[in-house]
Formats: sequence, C-alpha cells, structure tokens
Amino acid sequence: MPALTTNNPSSSAASSSSASSSGPAARTTYEPLSSAKGPAGSSNPPRVSLPIPIGNVALNTVNDIEKARSKAAFDPAKIEEVIRDGRIDNESRRKIIKTLDADEVFGDWKKRMLHFNREQQMAMSHKACRRLLDIAERDEWDTQEIIEAAISLDLQSPVTIHWVAFVPVIMSQGSPEQVERWGGRAMNHEILGAYLQTELGHGTNVQGLETLATYDEESDSFDIHSPTLTSTKWWAGGSGLTCTHGIVQAQLYIKGRRYGPHLFFVPMRSLETHEKLPGIVAGDIGPKTYGAFGGLDNGWVRFDHVKIPRDNMLGKHAHVKKGGEYVKPPSDKLSYGGMIFIRSQMIDRTGWMLSRGITIATRYSLVRRQFRDPDAKEGEIERSVLSYPSLNRRLMPLLAKSFAYIIAGRRMRILYEEMASQLESGDTTLLADVHVASSSLKAYCTKQSLDGIEECRQALGGHGFSAYAGFSSLFPDQAPTVTYEGDNYVLCQQVGRAMLKIAGELQRNPQGANVSNTTDFLRALATPNAIPYTAPQTAEEWLRPESWTGALRLRCARRVADLQAEITQAGRRFVDLSWDCVEVAKSHAEIVVNAWFTEGVEGDAQAYGEEASHWLRKIVALNGLTSVARDITPLALPAAEGRELAGYKSGQAVLGPKSVLALEAAVRSLVEEVLGQAIPMCDSFGWSDWELGSSLGRKDGRVYESLMAEAEGNPLNHAPKGNSIDDVGRYTYSAPNGGKYISHTFREELEPLFRAAAARSGEEPIKGSGAKL
Amino acid sequence: MPALTTNNPSSSAASSSSASSSGPAARTTYEPLSSAKGPAGSSNPPRVSLPIPIGNVALNTVNDIEKARSKAAFDPAKIEEVIRDGRIDNESRRKIIKTLDADEVFGDWKKRMLHFNREQQMAMSHKACRRLLDIAERDEWDTQEIIEAAISLDLQSPVTIHWVAFVPVIMSQGSPEQVERWGGRAMNHEILGAYLQTELGHGTNVQGLETLATYDEESDSFDIHSPTLTSTKWWAGGSGLTCTHGIVQAQLYIKGRRYGPHLFFVPMRSLETHEKLPGIVAGDIGPKTYGAFGGLDNGWVRFDHVKIPRDNMLGKHAHVKKGGEYVKPPSDKLSYGGMIFIRSQMIDRTGWMLSRGITIATRYSLVRRQFRDPDAKEGEIERSVLSYPSLNRRLMPLLAKSFAYIIAGRRMRILYEEMASQLESGDTTLLADVHVASSSLKAYCTKQSLDGIEECRQALGGHGFSAYAGFSSLFPDQAPTVTYEGDNYVLCQQVGRAMLKIAGELQRNPQGANVSNTTDFLRALATPNAIPYTAPQTAEEWLRPESWTGALRLRCARRVADLQAEITQAGRRFVDLSWDCVEVAKSHAEIVVNAWFTEGVEGDAQAYGEEASHWLRKIVALNGLTSVARDITPLALPAAEGRELAGYKSGQAVLGPKSVLALEAAVRSLVEEVLGQAIPMCDSFGWSDWELGSSLGRKDGRVYESLMAEAEGNPLNHAPKGNSIDDVGRYTYSAPNGGKYISHTFREELEPLFRAAAARSGEEPIKGSGAKL
Repeated sequence: MPALTTNNPSSSAASSSSASSSGPAARTTYEPLSSAKGPAGSSNPPRVSLPIPIGNVALNTVNDIEKARSKAAFDPAKIEEVIRDGRIDNESRRKIIKTLDADEVFGDWKKRMLHFNREQQMAMSHKACRRLLDIAERDEWDTQEIIEAAISLDLQSPVTIHWVAFVPVIMSQGSPEQVERWGGRAMNHEILGAYLQTELGHGTNVQGLETLATYDEESDSFDIHSPTLTSTKWWAGGSGLTCTHGIVQAQLYIKGRRYGPHLFFVPMRSLETHEKLPGIVAGDIGPKTYGAFGGLDNGWVRFDHVKIPRDNMLGKHAHVKKGGEYVKPPSDKLSYGGMIFIRSQMIDRTGWMLSRGITIATRYSLVRRQFRDPDAKEGEIERSVLSYPSLNRRLMPLLAKSFAYIIAGRRMRILYEEMASQLESGDTTLLADVHVASSSLKAYCTKQSLDGIEECRQALGGHGFSAYAGFSSLFPDQAPTVTYEGDNYVLCQQVGRAMLKIAGELQRNPQGANVSNTTDFLRALATPNAIPYTAPQTAEEWLRPESWTGALRLRCARRVADLQAEITQAGRRFVDLSWDCVEVAKSHAEIVVNAWFTEGVEGDAQAYGEEASHWLRKIVALNGLTSVARDITPLALPAAEGRELAGYKSGQAVLGPKSVLALEAAVRSLVEEVLGQAIPMCDSFGWSDWELGSSLGRKDGRVYESLMAEAEGNPLNHAPKGNSIDDVGRYTYSAPNGGKYISHTFREELEPLFRAAAARSGEEPIKGSGAKL
Repeated sequence: MPALTTNNPSSSAASSSSASSSGPAARTTYEPLSSAKGPAGSSNPPRVSLPIPIGNVALNTVNDIEKARSKAAFDPAKIEEVIRDGRIDNESRRKIIKTLDADEVFGDWKKRMLHFNREQQMAMSHKACRRLLDIAERDEWDTQEIIEAAISLDLQSPVTIHWVAFVPVIMSQGSPEQVERWGGRAMNHEILGAYLQTELGHGTNVQGLETLATYDEESDSFDIHSPTLTSTKWWAGGSGLTCTHGIVQAQLYIKGRRYGPHLFFVPMRSLETHEKLPGIVAGDIGPKTYGAFGGLDNGWVRFDHVKIPRDNMLGKHAHVKKGGEYVKPPSDKLSYGGMIFIRSQMIDRTGWMLSRGITIATRYSLVRRQFRDPDAKEGEIERSVLSYPSLNRRLMPLLAKSFAYIIAGRRMRILYEEMASQLESGDTTLLADVHVASSSLKAYCTKQSLDGIEECRQALGGHGFSAYAGFSSLFPDQAPTVTYEGDNYVLCQQVGRAMLKIAGELQRNPQGANVSNTTDFLRALATPNAIPYTAPQTAEEWLRPESWTGALRLRCARRVADLQAEITQAGRRFVDLSWDCVEVAKSHAEIVVNAWFTEGVEGDAQAYGEEASHWLRKIVALNGLTSVARDITPLALPAAEGRELAGYKSGQAVLGPKSVLALEAAVRSLVEEVLGQAIPMCDSFGWSDWELGSSLGRKDGRVYESLMAEAEGNPLNHAPKGNSIDDVGRYTYSAPNGGKYISHTFREELEPLFRAAAARSGEEPIKGSGAKL
C-alpha cells in the first residue's frame, strides 16, 4: 500500500499544545460524534455505523483549530460578555441555548426543518411554539427569554410575529385605555395578532395604500374596506391562517376628506371557532423564495365593509371624536419614531447574522487544507486555505464588518433611546440626525450583510453547497431585509436628500447648523480645511485612525459635492438622481459605522480589558481601511471643474498612487495580523454549535466526521418508519438499514422502462448483475 | 365613497394602441387567468373563486406592457432565432416547451416542486424522468431533445446527470473498444451512470484525491479503495441512491509508483436487485443549500478493495498493459480538453440563467408603479419604477450582460470546436489562448450572473421574496457554479499566471509571441503606443467602440503591470498573490467578453437584420461602458513609480475627471435609450411564461391577478385531498373550501394553551368570538 499523505499524524499531534493522551492523535477510526442527537425518548447516544479509518486529513482538523485557539492573545469571553448583553443577560441566554440544545424536539430541529415540506413546516411551527411555551412555563422564562429562544431557533412563526410586531404596535401606538384593553390580553395570548400594512400593490410607499377606513357618523364606527384587487393586504405574517386580530393600516376618510394612513384594531377570526369573521376573506400567500419563512403564514386579507367601533382606531397620536372631528397629533414628526425604532433594531441584528456566516467560514477555512506550498519542505502537508490571500482578504473584512455592525448597532439603540425620551418631552434636537443615520445604516448594513453571508458560503468551496454548511436559513431569512422596513434604494435617496439639505444649511450658515460627528463632514464643501488631512504615504501612516476617518469624510463630501453639482451644474431634477444617491448613502453609512464602532469600542474599553480592546481596535482599523478601499475613485481622481471641495484646487486629488499602494499594503498587513487571532475573534461572538447548525463551523474542527455522520443519518438513506409528521426528517444513525435504502420510485418508475428499452435495443442483454461490465 | 386613484381607466385604455373592444378596459372584476393549470384529467379550466373589483392599478399593467411592446424598433423574433439556435433548432425547442406546458404533470410542475419535501422531490424526480422518456417515445424526441426538455424543467435528476456527465466522459475518454462496450448500453439506459471525482477532503485540487486504484499483477485487475474518511467520494450526482455504474477518478499506483489521477469504470449496483455490489457503501449526502437540486441524489461512496478488470481503466489517452507497463498519453496537454469543454459550455448557460432574472425584473418593473412624480400634472398616475435611475441603472447593465454572455459564449463554443479539431491532429496553437479565456470567463461570468440574478430579485421589492417571483430554483441552481469545475478564485490565479507568462514572453520577444486579440493588449507593458488611446472628453466620444475597448485593454495592462511589480518590486511570491490576481482576471474577462460579444453580433449581423443589429450594437456599447465603469481607479489613478505602462509618464493617468464624468453621462444616455426597447429586448430571449414560472415576469403584465390566483390556489389554503404523493402541492382553484382552510395544528397545539393561560390570568374572560374587542 503506497503512502498516501506526507504528513505524520503523531508528530503533528505532539506539536499541538492541547492534545491530551486520549486526544485525537490516538484515534484511528471514525467515531461517533457526541453532539449527534437521538430520536425522542432514546436513552443511548446515537452512533454512526461505518467503520472507517479516519486518516490524517480529518485527524489534523482538531489539532489545527486547537492550536489556533491556544494562541489567543485575549480572552474571547470578555468580548462575548459585553456584546451579547442585550435584550437578555448572558446567563439567561446560555441557559436558554443549553435547554434547547438538549431538548428532544429542538435538539435536531434545524436539521429536520430541511426535510419538511411547506405544509409540514407550518404544522411544526405551531408545535414548536407550543413546546416553547410549555418549556417557558416549566422553567419560568419571561417574554424576553421566549423571544430570545424563538430567535435562536430561527423560528419564524405567527406567535413570534405576535410578539415582535403586534404587541409593540399596540403598546407604542395605542392610547393608555387601548393598551389596557388589548395589551394585557395580547401578552397573555388570549388573542393572537398580526400587523397588516403592505398591500398587493403598495409597500414602501405607505401613502399609496388603498385600504379604506371610512367614518360612518350614524353608527359611530369605521368601515374597513378593500376596494380593489391591489388593495388586498399582502405579506403580514400570521394573517393568512392564524391570527385572531389584526392592526390594519388604512386611509382614513371622514366626510369625504382624506386624512392619510392610520392604524385600526380589527377582529379577524372567531375566538370560539377560529372561522374568519363576516366580511373577512384571507389565506396564505404561498411559499417564500429559497424556502424562507416556511413556518410563517404570510397572508392575504380582504375586508368587505367590516364595521369596527370608533374606539378601535389606535389613538396615541391622533384620534377621531364622536361626530367625526379629527384631532391631529401634536407633531407630524412623532410618527417617525416607530420607523426609526424598527430600523435601529436591525443594525446589530444584521451584524449577528453575518457573524454566523463568518464564524463558519473562518473555522472551516482554517482546518481545510488544499495544495502544498511550492516552497514547502519535504514532509510538509497542504496549506490551510485560510492562509491564501484570496480567502483571508475576503473573509477578514467580513469579520470586521460583523463586529462593526454589532457594536455600532448597540450605539444606534442607545441613541434611539435618547432621542425617544427627548421626543416624549417634545424635544426634536436628535431626531433629524438619528433619522438619517438609521436610514443610512439600515440600507447599508442589510445589503453588506446579505452579500457578506453569501460570500462566506462561497468561500467554503464545494461543501458550501451542502445544507449542512448551515446557510439554508441564514441567507434566505436575511434576504427580505433589503426591501422591508423601507426599500434600501428609497432610503438611499432619503439620505441623499438629507445630505443636500444639511450641506445647504452649512453653506448658508457655517456655524449655526445643527450637525453631529456623522454630518459635520459636510462643512468641507464650503469651509476650507474643515477636514484637515495629510495623505498617508506608508502603510504605517494609514494605521492612524485619522487617516481612514478623514478619508471616509472627504470621500463622502466629494460624493455630495457631485450630487449637488448634478442639480446646480447639470440641471437634473433630484427625483432623477436616485442612482447618484446610492454612493452618497453608502459613503455616509461608512462614516457612521466607523464613528459609532470606534465610540462603542472605546466606551466599553474597561469592560473588554486591555488585551481584547487592543485587538478590537485593530478590527476598527481593518473596517475603516477596507471601507476606504471599497471605493477609491473619488479620492484618487481630481474633482471636475466646479465640483471641488473648499480648499482643494482643480486637478488636485486627495490621494496619489503612492498612498493607494500603501493603503493596500496596510490592509494586507492588518489582515495578516488579525488572521492569527481569527479563531478566538470568532469564538467571541459566542455561537454554540447548536445555534450555528453547521458541520463546517464546528467549534472542535471535526468537520469531516460531522459531514459523514449527517450524510449517513440523513432520512433519505433510511426507509421511513411511519406516516406521522413526527417521523419526517428524522435522522437515523446506526440503523440496521443504514446506507441500504433503495429508491422505491426508481425501481417502480424507471427500471421497467430501462429494461424494456434494453430488450428492444437488439444488443445482447447484459448477463447477471452488471458487475462484469 | 372617495375617489381612490387619480387616473382614468377608460382614457388610459384608449391610449393603448392594442386595446381591443373586449380588452382589459372592459374588465371590472378580477377574472380567471387562462394559464392556470387544472388537476390531472380535469376538463374545465380552473377558476379563481373570489369576486374582486380589479381596480385601476391592476388594470393598467396590461396596457403598460402592450404599449412598451408596440414601440419595438426591431423584431425580437429575429434575435431569438439566432441566439436560441443551439443544441437543438428553434422549431424543436418550441415544440418541446409547448408539449411540457400543456402536459398534465409538467404544466404545474415548477410550482408544485415548491411544496414537496426532499423525499418527495426525489421520488418526483424519478417520476418526471419516466414521463419525459414516455413522452419522448410517444413524440419521437431524440436525446438532445430529451436533454433540452429536462433543462427546461429545471430538473436536476440522476438521469440528467447520466446524460450530461457519465455518457460524455465515456465517449470522450474511453478507447474505441470501451465506447462500444459501454456507450451504447448507456445511451439505451441499460445502465445508469454517475461521474465520481470529488471527495470529502478534496475538490478543485484533483492531484490531492485520495482514492486508490492499485494494479494487482496476479489477477490483472485494479483494486479500487477508499483508504480514509476524507477519501470518501462526495457530491457525484446519482451516486447516492440510483446509479448502477460509476466512472471513478482515482490515483493510479503500479508496483508502488504513483501515476496520478486516472478514470475507472466501476460497477456499483446490481442490475438485477439494485442492491449495492460487494465492497460498495453509499448513500445520499443530504439536502443542498437553499433547497437546490432536491431531485438529485448527490452521493457519498466508499470502496472497500473493489476489484475491476484492467480493461476498465478508461483508455483513450493512457492505458496499462498486462503485467503493469504504463503507456502514457502522447501529450500531457490532451487531458486539458475535457475541462475546457465543460467550462466552455458554461458561459452561454450563465447568460441564459441571468436572462431569466432580467426578463422577470424588467417586465415587473415596467408595470409596477410607485410614487407620483413631484412635477406630475393633476390626474397623472404613479411612475413606472423602471423609470427610476436606481432601478434602470441597475437592470439595464444586467440585460446587457445577459446578451454578452450568451453571444460571447457562442463564440467560445466555436473556438473550442476549432481547438479540439486542431488537437486531434496534434496542433496546440489555440490551446493556451482558449484555455486561459475559458478559465477567465468561467470565473467571471458565473459570479457576475449569480450576483446579477439575486440583484434582479432584490429589484422586485417586497414581492421578490415570494416564491412566485420565480427565483426559487434560479438562484440556488446557479449557486454552485462559482465553485464547481474549478473554484473561481483558483481559476483567477491561473489567469494571473498566464498573463505574467505571456507578458514576459512579449517583453523578451515583442514580435514572436503567440497572442490573440484577447491577449495582445499585454504588449502595452513594454511597447509604447501598443494601444493607441485618446481619452474621451464627452459622452458622444465614449460611444465609439475604440473608447471602451481601449480603456478595457489599458486597464487590464495596468493590473498586470501591478501584479508583475508585486513580484519584481515588492518581492512577493506568486503563490501569495491570489488576491491580486482577482482583479487581473476580472479585467481580462471583460476584454474577452467585449471582444467576443462584438464579434458575435457583427458575425451574425445579416441574420439579425439591420434594426436588431442596430440595437444589439447599443447593448454591446452598454456592456463595454459599464465594464469600464465597474473599476475606474486603475485608469483614473496615475501609475506608481516603476509600474507605468510603456509610453506613459509617471504621474500621468489614462482618464481625467472630465472623462470620468462623461463616462457616467454616456452610460446614462445609453440606459435611457435602451430603456425604450427593454421589453422587446427581453422578449427576444424567447422565454415562455411556463419556463419562467413567475407571476411577476408574465409576458402579458397581469402580475397582480397572477399573484392573487396563485395565492388563493396554494395548497396551504385547502385541506389536502388524500395521502398520495400525487396530491402534494396540488393547486386547487375555486374549490368549495377556497380560503377556508383552518390550520388544524393551531387548534390542536396552541389554542388550548392560550385558553388555559387566559383562564389563569385573572382578567375577565373575553365574551363571545372576540369580534367586539
């Protein structure tokens, strides 16, 4: 038998600092993985059934990741402790994950969901909610803990929507009396709700909604009506099959006059029979793209002159008096609060989603080895693919983005809270700034994160196409974020408009305008030296925070100057500049992310501790520099005539060729430096193997053993036990018929056809089993 | 009742040139769509059951698209006729589509696939193949027609793989004797095959494969063996559950000496019992990401010292004599042919996939109206979203890419044929050039196309998240193309290496080197004025072909000069330049696409006719200019010292600010011009509604009616008829229980829980159905 690989397993194991005597080096055969989950009620851990020599390639993976982990220059737990402390505390979070991981239904849940069809996913979604609520009662979880559990399960269900959309709308938009009337019953699940805003014909353009709420003076009630096909309410989660009540956005009409969209509380299904109430027609809108949201009945709903009491209009801001007098909200701006709230919650969430992708991609790329280095010494094994720049130059910036969006998103939440409490007392100082920043970050971070997740999947090579890579709900679930809560391109145009407005104010009154550190860069348009900047000439100079911060600010100012010139110089209308606004918004978002990420890291520096802070600052630098590198042209290209920033001469670029070369060298050196800490950095996100649901992202590096175990146990290889939904997608390790499943339909459908064709062919038939062909 | 919309349906219908007296303007109620498919055996066309006033928004869509179509400045059929003429002729293609569209199983196939679970998809895949072969026999289709039908169905099945991978490998790599022995039986389906190359531990790095084929002199046979866990064959389509025979790539060892990977014909399952033959262990590897390839049993296979006769090594190029003498192939380069063949087939295919996405996105964006123009006159309706630059500036370049990859891909096939026939006679003149171009285009076009498809989906707004948008198999099926047949990043490095090699040859011997119009731009590194270029100063100047062709060539030369300098100036190793190669390969691919796209359009100019050629030339220009605009920096930034192109002074950029502004203006004017022909351009791809499987991409524009019909008919809204697989996912229009399905699991699982919680809450229980809340 020829020698297969050139490395020596015992020597490589010996070089691993953490290899114990019974460690991986001692194994020669593929063994059961302890994390494999058993069928409900089984007492023995399930075992894979194939005796396979494990071989050096698979053996090495454990050593590789342990070695990388042993070189950690900081304690990942310190970072996890700060950044995970959110809606619930870390201890509660760990308790929840542990409970779900060990649970007989939820332990294998993510894998089994891959095998259910739409109808089964919908049914399982209800079952999962029941079990979640049962566990919550048993273990005394509060609502925030239940929500955290549902999020951990990647569970999109009518009950989840009830908590995250229906209840908050009542609480924030209802009058005190309405909150009392409906809020408690909703929290108790006496009623189950949906939030119906978008329609078949209109989404982001809320003013274009067609559903009518017409005040009828005689009965002192509203008539809720869907006048056209396109006015059909569309998309609302839970509205298709499940919810009992809905908050419906409709155009308010009183005595023939239109007052714009308002919110109405509308009973939809009987609490006694669950039949739809008179005048309501509704159903599920069908499957979602890429199989996303299978357990959620996004619905279509039509109202045929449904009458609701006048008091069912949500009345925190505006209300209608008996007889039809409309009492308008004290300020038009108050209603912005809700949109800003939702967008402000999305930023760190997109960072967390991306962090799942990057954790999987980084861990697998570290332990995956391909191609020997041409300069390798005899006996050296193949290179870790993470050591190739084509991988690490792609992945490390995504690692930086994950931290950036998580930490900047935390700043965003704090700013939102400040703004909201200001608003309560009628103070709108922060409103404009927080509004534009939240639009800017929502549009930028959701798109960067979605692209980044798919980039992580592609970085896995061939196995990235397996569902066991762990991206099957990650990418699809993230997919709608670029359109919902305001289509990103519409938001970009809003950001562009805000930039022009502020720039104009600053040009008119350089000192008086209300700007913050995310908008004061606009002074550069009219004030010479508003952003003092010396172009870095070496990689070292680029590593100073002012180098990237200044470049980001100057670049965005250049983009805004160009946008302005398209109107003043080229005479184009703002409404036709939506494409020009895209780069303005992106470059503005990168200023905000950089500013808030920096503030977040510095603000929590004590909690992180010295070592972790040191490395987080490198991540801040990496994010800043790659943000600059994303779009160099406005810095490298002199401004065209009449588009110069104040103080810059025509024909003068911000960066010369030497600076641009140095920037790439700086990024390269940072990537190489961060690379040595990439595994502990990923560990600091705190994802458990159960949450990731990924064979390739396993914390212990046993990727090949895990893929083999999942593949062997996957239901397609085993005859189904019964017809119950509880058997669908059940992984059966070590079954007597393991790997022996025969595709019945093949034998029934195709084989007879092939035999007949062969008989007709005139060739001499194959004798026997074909083993001698 | 207040007036809802400001437009007047009768006047807008009157302005449509094609509105007939019984046309859309006459409709006031949502009507059944003629394309809805009935259940098997039904004689009446299915009807939607909801009486809904249709409304102006939905009514307008038909007028909008007909109006756009009536403005066609060329005949779309002329283009379709040329570009669709491929493996089969147009008439056969139309016949196949018509047959499948009308077929009781295949008519609703694409929609129903969304509702099957993995096990059901696998079973349905076999059923579909049977029906396909039955139809083929009935209608006398040949093999190419069967393959075309399978592709039209988006059917990834073991039988498809047998045709497109197994049979071609036998034909191209087998000796004449082997082709006779296995080829006919394979064509007849007496045997069903799989092609087993990649393993759990290795993919693109074929040299790293671990499976062994050891020659045993005594028995004059090969011993096929999987020595380690990671040597397990992984991914081969059809190998998991179905195939009877496999072509296995394994490391050939004779008398202890390794000869590298070779191909072996290995019997795997009994033709009599379909049981796996002794020594074979195999199974399905599990679901694929995003639900892709559900009907294909990608497999894992292990060989435990399986003996096959010596003659089972595929012997066209090399063979082993009795006793163990290895007879090597006449040229090492011959084996390149296969890889180049597969890659060369992928280019137009990626264009076709993208063209589906862009057809859907363009049609829907035209008929979708959102927001009124601020300068609109009273009574004007909302703007078509396609008129917004943020949409058309995204979509029109993707339209151009679709044509570019389809037409350049056709040139690629022709060049491959030329090269292959040269190779047959030992002539390798074309080999190097075709090899690098195929790698470059494969890496570039697959990625651009995959990103472009998802971009098209995102451009649809909220409804892009519905499976009825038609992207649920489009994107997932395209997803693996970036890694299979050579990971794109590995290919980019090969392109970079080739560029350096050719550049070096040209520097040593400017006149003698073997270059073509896709590589001779490299002269610019050493020869002054090799690419004569005057930077365009106006949009008009940019519209001349030499402006973008020259810019693309100069840009790539700059990238290669930088790559070279990283080695000679910065002292980095080539193996560490994989990231630097990415932009080199991209910019090279854009030269090739532009050159071949141009040649393709000019070469077929007569067949297209004058009008269509005129518009295709605009598409060539749009693709060329947006390719330049994709990455302006190397043109706008002067070269750093020692990195200048010959004839350029240090500090001198190719393009100044005025040129860059003019470029964007040129793109804008081209986009606006092409926009008026966008609908006929999409029509010229020739996709039928059945093939697109998209409510939003309907040729007649009835998008809202279609979404409503699909949503109403979707199985989740109807109680299932029976337990047979034939009932799964069956759309039930106009059923008596239409829209009245009650989620049984909700009532069983959640409702009792909620009632119990309510009872415990201490609040006064809700009286009645909750309709009064």
